[in-house]
Amino acid sequence: MFKINDNFCQLAESYLFSEVARRIAAFKEANPEAEIIRLGIGDVTIPLCPAAIEAMHAAVDDEANAATFRGYGPEQGYPFLREAIAEHDYRARGVEIAPDEIFVSDGAKSDTGNIGDILAASNRVAVTDPVYPVYVDTNVMAGRAGAPLAGGSFSKVVYLPVTAENGFVPALPEEKVDMIYLCYPNNPTGTALTREQLKAWVDYAAANGALILYDSAYEAFIRQEGVPHSIYEIEGAKKVAIEFRSFSKTAGFTGVRCGYTVVPKELKGVDSEGREVGLNHLWNRRQCTKFNGASYISQRGAAAIYTPEGRRQAREAVDYYMANAALMLSELRKAGFEVFGGENAPYVWLKTPDGMDSWAFFDLLLRECQVAGTPGSGFGPAGEGYFRLTAFNTLENTREALRRIVSRFA
Amino acid sequence: MFKINDNFCQLAESYLFSEVARRIAAFKEANPEAEIIRLGIGDVTIPLCPAAIEAMHAAVDDEANAATFRGYGPEQGYPFLREAIAEHDYRARGVEIAPDEIFVSDGAKSDTGNIGDILAASNRVAVTDPVYPVYVDTNVMAGRAGAPLAGGSFSKVVYLPVTAENGFVPALPEEKVDMIYLCYPNNPTGTALTREQLKAWVDYAAANGALILYDSAYEAFIRQEGVPHSIYEIEGAKKVAIEFRSFSKTAGFTGVRCGYTVVPKELKGVDSEGREVGLNHLWNRRQCTKFNGASYISQRGAAAIYTPEGRRQAREAVDYYMANAALMLSELRKAGFEVFGGENAPYVWLKTPDGMDSWAFFDLLLRECQVAGTPGSGFGPAGEGYFRLTAFNTLENTREALRRIVSRFA
Repeated sequence: MFKINDNFCQLAESYLFSEVARRIAAFKEANPEAEIIRLGIGDVTIPLCPAAIEAMHAAVDDEANAATFRGYGPEQGYPFLREAIAEHDYRARGVEIAPDEIFVSDGAKSDTGNIGDILAASNRVAVTDPVYPVYVDTNVMAGRAGAPLAGGSFSKVVYLPVTAENGFVPALPEEKVDMIYLCYPNNPTGTALTREQLKAWVDYAAANGALILYDSAYEAFIRQEGVPHSIYEIEGAKKVAIEFRSFSKTAGFTGVRCGYTVVPKELKGVDSEGREVGLNHLWNRRQCTKFNGASYISQRGAAAIYTPEGRRQAREAVDYYMANAALMLSELRKAGFEVFGGENAPYVWLKTPDGMDSWAFFDLLLRECQVAGTPGSGFGPAGEGYFRLTAFNTLENTREALRRIVSRFA
Repeated sequence: MFKINDNFCQLAESYLFSEVARRIAAFKEANPEAEIIRLGIGDVTIPLCPAAIEAMHAAVDDEANAATFRGYGPEQGYPFLREAIAEHDYRARGVEIAPDEIFVSDGAKSDTGNIGDILAASNRVAVTDPVYPVYVDTNVMAGRAGAPLAGGSFSKVVYLPVTAENGFVPALPEEKVDMIYLCYPNNPTGTALTREQLKAWVDYAAANGALILYDSAYEAFIRQEGVPHSIYEIEGAKKVAIEFRSFSKTAGFTGVRCGYTVVPKELKGVDSEGREVGLNHLWNRRQCTKFNGASYISQRGAAAIYTPEGRRQAREAVDYYMANAALMLSELRKAGFEVFGGENAPYVWLKTPDGMDSWAFFDLLLRECQVAGTPGSGFGPAGEGYFRLTAFNTLENTREALRRIVSRFA
């Protein structure tokens, strides 16, 4: 009989957000009158900006006429988008990234999930803890994680706790690791690293032959000076890091699907005989073989975000969410919560009251305030006792959720 | 130093279609006045049908308004599309496939490439030869293919020749295999299997515990009775087969990106301890973890193909291409070529004249007729001495290409 990939059997039964959705649905069924406000999954609520809408209508029209019809596009993305990214996301910040180092895709979840295809199963993986579940789960699938341990962690993964105790700055690993996932501004804690703090990681990777997988899906939410938007702002990073970006949160593309991954040509790993191999070439081969390019319509929409109007409009949406985040920080503090993040990211991370465990607090908040968040423990063992709320709902709903929380807990 | 996935080093330097594109570009640069007609890569040329265009405009408008905005959709695809597929592609043919057995994606290339994620690296793989390169290349990447041999084949892959000698019907493997890729109507040969011929494979898989990976991306081109559109038309297939489908060729979605994969709940493999595990569950977990759903706009466009107007309009485009194919068969025969396929598929497969090798004929045809096709040897060792032409160009260009070929070879 043909065999399945056994590693899948090591995974917890359900993906975190599926479990959250399941509990909300069960509560809703038992309490059909409840008006649940969702501050859980990081999905946006503001419609796409007019510049993107206009560009996508035009792209749909392109597909309606033989003279402008676009069939298969380049697997790596259209030049019009790769060049706009190179110019606005990098050159404008003093970073030189060539268009052929940029790979457009259907989103950062796909890319952070698939990147392991080009890396050896024997690499030792480090993640911050708590962490976006995709990093760990995809390494479990690939056989890099080892055996599941009590508490939801895995035997071969090196966990780097980020908690209130260390100010949410991960310590460098004590044992040798090969692949390090860093997400900054951070999901789920909403905290950021300064240039100096990130430089310590680039230097560590260079000194130890490690690869940094840098997820900067939330860079548009950075408000403070001194917080890098790209890891390539750090000298030497092109030799040690892959960067993942997304239009999902920056421009509301969660349903439209578009993101990109930067794989610098200077970045090299070694094969089993120690020969250097360029990762740009490998990722290009992977994408040409297993992917056929992002939708032309989505790419046109994404390119419109780089026009002057598109940038202004997208920025307005980000500002709106960040105003929600500011309100959440102040109101939650008023209610007596210890809160973190929310200054350079659309996530607020709070300590559960009285040391309550994360899922118990999830159930309590859902039951008593009809507010749905995400349990910190779902992001990793060190997330236990924490809880994530997102700033992506409407101002009205966010206000109402905070009113309920303040009236219950203050 | 971190290690790369060594299996990538076993791959030929470039993906077939990249090499074709490179040679065409080089010829074009040397001969800027040449009017090259491309009958190579299987890309469509007819614009999207009005029903799909209208639905996509409406979907773009949905994304412009808060009341109708769609963010993250279900990773498996929207119910409106899964239900339309179940109804029209299956129930209408007497096959019961539940919507939750259908996984919508950004295309069949992604799915046929990624499906290996849920299968053990130790499985023995069989492919027809010639074959769509993605099947083999993705298994090389996953370590299932073994070492490269002279001639472009791999030591652990079982090749099942399909040539004029056996009427393009692959013989059942003589050694035990675990995973069998079948693409019917076939890319690249354009030939089809009858119900009885396909039944032999379903029976073989059931008797030998093998999994059939059935790519029916070209089912819309079937014209003859007795040729199954879905493998599930064969009794017992739900226990042994995954089916891949695409809107790319059926409805011109090569640039819009949408396809789907059917993983029946009855289909089970075993883990390393021999316990049965359902593949529907595994693929669902894979997609929820490494994929975030196809674009909402693409899914709305795809759903429109199932309306009465959409079906009629999509069928018109398919008929147009099949008229090209019929013309190609008759004119190429007139020019003295031995030709195959083209009756239930948009591909015509021809024997190169005088036993010329495939790449030599590619260069000759490009140089002397300014017609670009695809060398058969690029699809596998048994494709040597054959050549693929596609029916996807305009009637005008197809006629002109045939005129040049007839005048050179007749």
